[in-house]
Amino acid sequence: MELIGRSFIGNARGQEGGPLLHAINPLTGEPLSPAYAAATAAETAHAVELAAAAAPQLAQTNGKQRAHFLRHVADGLQEAMPELVARAQLETALPVARLQGETARTCGQLRLFASLIEEGSWVDARIDPALPDRHPLPRPDLRSMMRPLGPVAVFGASNFPLAFSAAGGDTASALAAGCPVVVKAHSAHPGTSEIVARVLAHSIAACNMPEGTYSLLYGAGAQVGTALVRHPKIQAVAFTGSLHGGRALMDAAAARPQPIPCFTEMSGVNPVFLLPGIFEHDPVQLAEGIYNSFTLGSGQFCTKPGLIFFTPGAGCERFLARLRELVSSSQPWPLLTPAIAGAYQSCSQLRATQAERSAQAEARDDAPACSARAQLFHVGVKQYLAEPQLAEEIFGPTTLLVECPNDASMIEAATALHGQLTATILGPAQELAAHQQLIALLEAKAGRILFNGFPTGVEVCHAMVHGGPYPSTSDARFTSVGTRAIYRFVRPVCFQGFPDEQLPEELRNGNPCGILRLVDGVSTREAILPKTVR
Amino acid sequence: MELIGRSFIGNARGQEGGPLLHAINPLTGEPLSPAYAAATAAETAHAVELAAAAAPQLAQTNGKQRAHFLRHVADGLQEAMPELVARAQLETALPVARLQGETARTCGQLRLFASLIEEGSWVDARIDPALPDRHPLPRPDLRSMMRPLGPVAVFGASNFPLAFSAAGGDTASALAAGCPVVVKAHSAHPGTSEIVARVLAHSIAACNMPEGTYSLLYGAGAQVGTALVRHPKIQAVAFTGSLHGGRALMDAAAARPQPIPCFTEMSGVNPVFLLPGIFEHDPVQLAEGIYNSFTLGSGQFCTKPGLIFFTPGAGCERFLARLRELVSSSQPWPLLTPAIAGAYQSCSQLRATQAERSAQAEARDDAPACSARAQLFHVGVKQYLAEPQLAEEIFGPTTLLVECPNDASMIEAATALHGQLTATILGPAQELAAHQQLIALLEAKAGRILFNGFPTGVEVCHAMVHGGPYPSTSDARFTSVGTRAIYRFVRPVCFQGFPDEQLPEELRNGNPCGILRLVDGVSTREAILPKTVR
Repeated sequence: MELIGRSFIGNARGQEGGPLLHAINPLTGEPLSPAYAAATAAETAHAVELAAAAAPQLAQTNGKQRAHFLRHVADGLQEAMPELVARAQLETALPVARLQGETARTCGQLRLFASLIEEGSWVDARIDPALPDRHPLPRPDLRSMMRPLGPVAVFGASNFPLAFSAAGGDTASALAAGCPVVVKAHSAHPGTSEIVARVLAHSIAACNMPEGTYSLLYGAGAQVGTALVRHPKIQAVAFTGSLHGGRALMDAAAARPQPIPCFTEMSGVNPVFLLPGIFEHDPVQLAEGIYNSFTLGSGQFCTKPGLIFFTPGAGCERFLARLRELVSSSQPWPLLTPAIAGAYQSCSQLRATQAERSAQAEARDDAPACSARAQLFHVGVKQYLAEPQLAEEIFGPTTLLVECPNDASMIEAATALHGQLTATILGPAQELAAHQQLIALLEAKAGRILFNGFPTGVEVCHAMVHGGPYPSTSDARFTSVGTRAIYRFVRPVCFQGFPDEQLPEELRNGNPCGILRLVDGVSTREAILPKTVR
Repeated sequence: MELIGRSFIGNARGQEGGPLLHAINPLTGEPLSPAYAAATAAETAHAVELAAAAAPQLAQTNGKQRAHFLRHVADGLQEAMPELVARAQLETALPVARLQGETARTCGQLRLFASLIEEGSWVDARIDPALPDRHPLPRPDLRSMMRPLGPVAVFGASNFPLAFSAAGGDTASALAAGCPVVVKAHSAHPGTSEIVARVLAHSIAACNMPEGTYSLLYGAGAQVGTALVRHPKIQAVAFTGSLHGGRALMDAAAARPQPIPCFTEMSGVNPVFLLPGIFEHDPVQLAEGIYNSFTLGSGQFCTKPGLIFFTPGAGCERFLARLRELVSSSQPWPLLTPAIAGAYQSCSQLRATQAERSAQAEARDDAPACSARAQLFHVGVKQYLAEPQLAEEIFGPTTLLVECPNDASMIEAATALHGQLTATILGPAQELAAHQQLIALLEAKAGRILFNGFPTGVEVCHAMVHGGPYPSTSDARFTSVGTRAIYRFVRPVCFQGFPDEQLPEELRNGNPCGILRLVDGVSTREAILPKTVR
């Protein structure tokens, strides 16, 4: 189906002519058709008004209805996979296999949230039945559960055109919670977003969801995005992107007359700590694992390991030699956008003035327009600690080796870390027990701590935490990946003394939803008996 | 034991001489001894440093150890009840029975959190075991649970010198979570706070908790409080008080280089909606119920019903007459502080220029120094909607009747409401079903919705929600009362690929804590079998 380059505003398409944007083909540097018209201020406001009008209706749908809708969207995306992958490939230069996998992951996320809300226990239903005979005072009947916050503004990320974008994890978890969503599409992949939004529009109609359940707006973040966050009817924000952009949204959300929750997933260097014994096993395989992790997706993952702390020992030279060899011989890595390519160029040039560049891939005349040469930097821990810029993220295929003479200096480096999405320890299992202090330190710094794994690859499951202390995210109490992500968009509401038939289904005596509930502090699926209710 | 008027800084008492503060006896207006020396900037910073040093040790204690500590504190407070009540009575002029009840409630809160963390399932342990044979990619072993945020700054409230103060719900939930606490004592009841802090200091020593687990600082909020919120090692804030004060803390927390969670419970008018049929039953009893609720604690409850929406009908006149009678004949109500008494005076004078004052208690020469005459205001809904000031809280024994000609105008008034802690509907049960729109509207505005009850009286239990949309609190996703309050101070941490013996007890295969865990998405207390682990 032809792309028309217009925002999705409720059930309609944008009509007014805002400034035009073009996606750029990162391989050629050429603009792609069609042109995308930025949403005007009036269109942005209208999308939010439609979302606000949909909010109470969506809040009245039950988990099974919303699950059906999410699965319909997943089926639609799966059906659109060939078209999606073809367009995303043009817009992002990501490999076809990766884009197919990412589409599957996006469908999987939607289906996981569908299962969660269909089962229903996630609402954290709590019932403290009345105790009319209690002394000195009777206890009233109190029942509470999680309910949706209202319209959520979602910002698509550049580096995951599907899984963290128009129908990505933020959208899936907000819709699952019962919140309408207004997406600010990322300007790097507007066509991919248009195909996704078309699927959503179709599912909204097919599943009888209210108009305004979903809108998708094109435009610059500074205009459309800021207007969204400031709109009084937006009740929460979810963003994946840069520290600079995320902090600006946090500040805007906090400065509103009514401050609103703003979950921004921003940045990090995902430190890796190599325990001394690691080199004794297979230093070549270790080098390959690290190399594959920091170049995965051309090093454009938010979980890319950007700092490798190590203590030289037997086998270390072989590890370093293999790492240098892999970097030196690597092909040019395509990057997502001209801006990312430019930032990689300037940041890595700056880093070369602060640390030794121990390996660099060759320059190639036939490299894509937006691309990067892999680079490996190396620095001593003293210098690392003296120059805070060395701890900053460089988006792209590069990492920094930090040589630590001993455990104490590694602890010092861990202590100085900012908040991170992940922190990794690699080493023999028997050595881990001697590093309790390191584990405790990293636990305080990161949302996910790995042992003998690589941080890239974020499993979408119940136990995942893709969050962490600032500046990795705005609020370490939440995650943007996994089923816990739904809790960003809900709040508990307590019903006191309500007649059974006026309560939400989840809180009724008979437990018609069959969910797990906390009754008088005890988890149970059992109904509440009339004699308990009195 | 004699009060010495010094801050508690870890295991020591303040030594330096900051500005001196005195509590005021609200009955006489006279200052009470001793003088309280404000913590200096250095003392404040030292208390936070001690808390930060204690944080990793406290994070390593298990739920049973912390439960023992909380129970020890509760026992100590119970033992100190005569001394506490005597001093609190001098500082607050609250009735002895109320202060005894509040002490019991404070002990009850500590014990409820003790039970919660002793049982242990609150940590939301989640385990997604490894799937090494999964295609196309294996799944690593992922396990996550809630872990403490670190040092929490707690601000005591003026109106609950025990239950929302030095060892109140915020302190109890933060300590239960495993976070050290630094309290900024409220200047209205420094002696009560000193007795409470002495109990805590004793329990810390007796239970071998680390120094810095608890400190209590005296001083003005603008100095000590702001310094606390800005200190880089403070990781969360809990506050109960005015909108002005709470918003200032929210802004300070959001403006930090590292923004931190800031839960402020601020204000509200707790609207009450009377369905037309209500007057047919017992209008006199209804008037007495409403009167008792808005004058409870001299109208100084954050859940005081400050707006009563009603539609005149049969029996309404008897209701109004009885309400006027109760207000007119009421004794002077003592207030907590000269500042609260002054604000009540000026705010109610202003209100008398905007609404009809339909009843007022007599002025009395023998009234306490800080006291208030009960007042009843009355206004039509049109005027109410036209003057936003009429929807503002007045702290003290007064409420505003808003006359609505019909259901539609009541809906209009409900739509215009700001966020609230509570919203109440009173009426015949059979009439409630015809008011779905009102219920849905109030659900979107408040944290707790009551039917045929009064909002004052906040039960400390599992299902309670004492929170709500801004401006009632800073973040509707949390509550400051009830066991859910613990989630303000924790964040999920995920362990990937960790050897069983290096995991926190709650996440180990054998489930030695016997807690409920989400294993592969299913709630269970069962251990994970080796074959599942592979």
